Amino acid sequence: MHRPASAIVIGVGPERGLGATLARCFARHGLHVFIAGRSEDRLQAVATQIQQAGGTATPVVADATVEQDVSQLFEVVRARGDVIEVAAYNVDSNIPVPFLETGVDTFTALWQQNCLGAFLFAQQVISIMQAQQQGTLFFTGATGSLRAKPPFTAFASAKAGLRALAQGLAREFSPQGVHVVHTIIDGVIDGERARSQFPEYVKAKGKDGLLQLEAIAQTYWAIHQQHPSAWTHELDLRPHKEPF
Amino acid sequence: MHRPASAIVIGVGPERGLGATLARCFARHGLHVFIAGRSEDRLQAVATQIQQAGGTATPVVADATVEQDVSQLFEVVRARGDVIEVAAYNVDSNIPVPFLETGVDTFTALWQQNCLGAFLFAQQVISIMQAQQQGTLFFTGATGSLRAKPPFTAFASAKAGLRALAQGLAREFSPQGVHVVHTIIDGVIDGERARSQFPEYVKAKGKDGLLQLEAIAQTYWAIHQQHPSAWTHELDLRPHKEPF
Amino acid sequence: MHRPASAIVIGVGPERGLGATLARCFARHGLHVFIAGRSEDRLQAVATQIQQAGGTATPVVADATVEQDVSQLFEVVRARGDVIEVAAYNVDSNIPVPFLETGVDTFTALWQQNCLGAFLFAQQVISIMQAQQQGTLFFTGATGSLRAKPPFTAFASAKAGLRALAQGLAREFSPQGVHVVHTIIDGVIDGERARSQFPEYVKAKGKDGLLQLEAIAQTYWAIHQQHPSAWTHELDLRPHKEPF
Amino acid sequence: MHRPASAIVIGVGPERGLGATLARCFARHGLHVFIAGRSEDRLQAVATQIQQAGGTATPVVADATVEQDVSQLFEVVRARGDVIEVAAYNVDSNIPVPFLETGVDTFTALWQQNCLGAFLFAQQVISIMQAQQQGTLFFTGATGSLRAKPPFTAFASAKAGLRALAQGLAREFSPQGVHVVHTIIDGVIDGERARSQFPEYVKAKGKDGLLQLEAIAQTYWAIHQQHPSAWTHELDLRPHKEPF
Repeated sequence: MHRPASAIVIGVGPERGLGATLARCFARHGLHVFIAGRSEDRLQAVATQIQQAGGTATPVVADATVEQDVSQLFEVVRARGDVIEVAAYNVDSNIPVPFLETGVDTFTALWQQNCLGAFLFAQQVISIMQAQQQGTLFFTGATGSLRAKPPFTAFASAKAGLRALAQGLAREFSPQGVHVVHTIIDGVIDGERARSQFPEYVKAKGKDGLLQLEAIAQTYWAIHQQHPSAWTHELDLRPHKEPF
Repeated sequence: MHRPASAIVIGVGPERGLGATLARCFARHGLHVFIAGRSEDRLQAVATQIQQAGGTATPVVADATVEQDVSQLFEVVRARGDVIEVAAYNVDSNIPVPFLETGVDTFTALWQQNCLGAFLFAQQVISIMQAQQQGTLFFTGATGSLRAKPPFTAFASAKAGLRALAQGLAREFSPQGVHVVHTIIDGVIDGERARSQFPEYVKAKGKDGLLQLEAIAQTYWAIHQQHPSAWTHELDLRPHKEPF
Repeated sequence: MHRPASAIVIGVGPERGLGATLARCFARHGLHVFIAGRSEDRLQAVATQIQQAGGTATPVVADATVEQDVSQLFEVVRARGDVIEVAAYNVDSNIPVPFLETGVDTFTALWQQNCLGAFLFAQQVISIMQAQQQGTLFFTGATGSLRAKPPFTAFASAKAGLRALAQGLAREFSPQGVHVVHTIIDGVIDGERARSQFPEYVKAKGKDGLLQLEAIAQTYWAIHQQHPSAWTHELDLRPHKEPF
Repeated sequence: MHRPASAIVIGVGPERGLGATLARCFARHGLHVFIAGRSEDRLQAVATQIQQAGGTATPVVADATVEQDVSQLFEVVRARGDVIEVAAYNVDSNIPVPFLETGVDTFTALWQQNCLGAFLFAQQVISIMQAQQQGTLFFTGATGSLRAKPPFTAFASAKAGLRALAQGLAREFSPQGVHVVHTIIDGVIDGERARSQFPEYVKAKGKDGLLQLEAIAQTYWAIHQQHPSAWTHELDLRPHKEPF
């Protein structure tokens, strides 16, 4: 008998956000989706959307940086007993700030959200996928993953830590069948966050100047479909007009 | 009226090779395919295969390192008048040799085949795609593109030159609608070359230990399908068991 | 009147360690040296050595990961009122461990020691050096700064975070006269730690198989001597026999 | 008996250029200097300067891209019979040009000058240094060695090829005692070339905005002095005000 399959996305926020878009994408491809994030209302909204489109979703309120929250999320996941086909660590927090004004709290919080949470999530996901001998684990990186520039030094430090984590995991677990992927989102995503926080910038960028949510999800899915003889570990995603 | 579309692949050799596989893949997706390489027999065999599968192909004998050959190939291409949707520079020659035994001829030939030919090809392709404001141009890289190790120093030098070329082109022409992609094939391809040159190695690698040709082509096609708001410039492709 | 000058080294442990060696080197070049570390006995031993060689040193017990300790160190530093010519963040802790056996505590501690402590130290050092419009700030990196490999994934994640921090600081503060340097120690240092923890390895490596402490210090000093028109931000240091 | 020692610098042009400065630096440190370049007048001027400062120099007219010229240079070198302590490949030619306007001749010439010449030079130098089991071989890189940007794509392709060559050589010959160094000059050198070709730029950059020739030479010498247990393979050199 064919065992049913699920996906897990942590870092699900607004409907027009990457987390929600990945969740909808995975659901559309027939996977049950566990969606985790800090806001119950937002999770509920995304879950409803998925269900209305004919999919199924389980919302779990969880702060990705809190070990116990992550444990509880995976208790829910394991209780369902599905194969976990794909998982995405999509928490991404950025606070631009000059170095001398960066508080220890900010430096620490950025690391917890961009890197420590990924560690907690990965330990759970990999223990499942290692046993399955299959599954794809995505980490969403950013421009700062490769280059540290003020006022993004603290953010870049955390993202570089995430990138190294992803690379070490790929080396350790690819041979065991776990596909570990690090994506470098090099540009601004056309989502709720950008639209509410810097609407002028969004307007100025114009058509194809920001990464379209569905376009990112399409590539995640394509990478997930790769045959194990030709896996991609790292790739960039960038609006064609974006200078780099 | 919809203008018909073509693909171009240069570096087409044996039927079980990446060039031929890409050509068949592009034909299967409905594109007419120009296939170029040094051996008329091999080109003819691949063209026949494509036609038997219901596609169309134009074989053009050309040495990618000879400017005039490349010019003639593009005279044939332009004569047909199709939109060029995708083009792949797939010439890849490698000669492992200790540095002090590397002849100037070898060092030069590796550069001509892996880098100069790409320059010649790219000038033609980009002048077409720039006018079209669309199209994807692939360059096939290798492990050596990122790391130079003996006895592959000469090869790596040429491949690093190719990678920089691809990067410069992406920066110059992406804003004009040309998608420039550099793939890093990090491992051995399960093709005619490996099977005939080092059969023992192929056997020892076992299932999924070598890159399957169709698996590579599938990713090329997925990358070609990307929306311009989220293009990938560089990605690695590696058997899941390959140490890196 | 010429204002007297000092150096600061944090992460000073055994006499045969890089911290102590850098401190002795800076003292030999005429600088007063503040030496900080967790063990009062060890600091005292190094201070005595420096004094016996005709230099001067102030030992300050401090845990580099504790904000208050770092603040107190810099109260002592500021009380003396010297120009701070050079400062080195030399804390380096490594715990090889397979990913699934890595505790959250270990992952966090490695980050605190290799990255957070550097942040705390840098904030103090840079506020001084920025005001001076001069000074060199060293961060000691490792092989893992560039590549994450099991069982060093947690370590590499922390070191990658440190490297990005250093890079961001160089971009932000070099124009203001602060020379920020990231060294990549790619190999094992011939010091107390290696000799006590893996004596067989040390023996097997043989002459020049491990980095000599004085050799490292000599390069730090040379980089510190660079003219502002030609500063180095990053360099590797590696035993000539070390594969890389 | 102590065998006398020499240095070799290829790519010696104007007196206010990096080649000439390195030659003077090596002579000042007691080495006989072989200086090679295309202009007999310039070589003669530099040789005279060195002699007037109490050093000794042998000028050899040679085009670094012509195999026979390089062979003849090394016949002269071998005839003297000195230990070759240090050698520098300092040919650096750059032609900014949009890709579609780049002639095959330009693309080829840039590769010959920045990469092929280095190959020819390295084969001679390494066969000497390998036998000696000592010696330092420098390759002078540039911003383009790491990043390809228009209008420097052709230049960057050549410099990336050089960098890979240097890396492969370091891996192959460091264990045999040959110190291979790749420097990344990330900025404009305050020399004859910049002053004559873009005087306005030089003026606008101001004090420490361009790399001072002596400052670069000082670091080359410091790296040459490194102990074999802690060699640097790659380092950047950049004016402190230079954005990167």
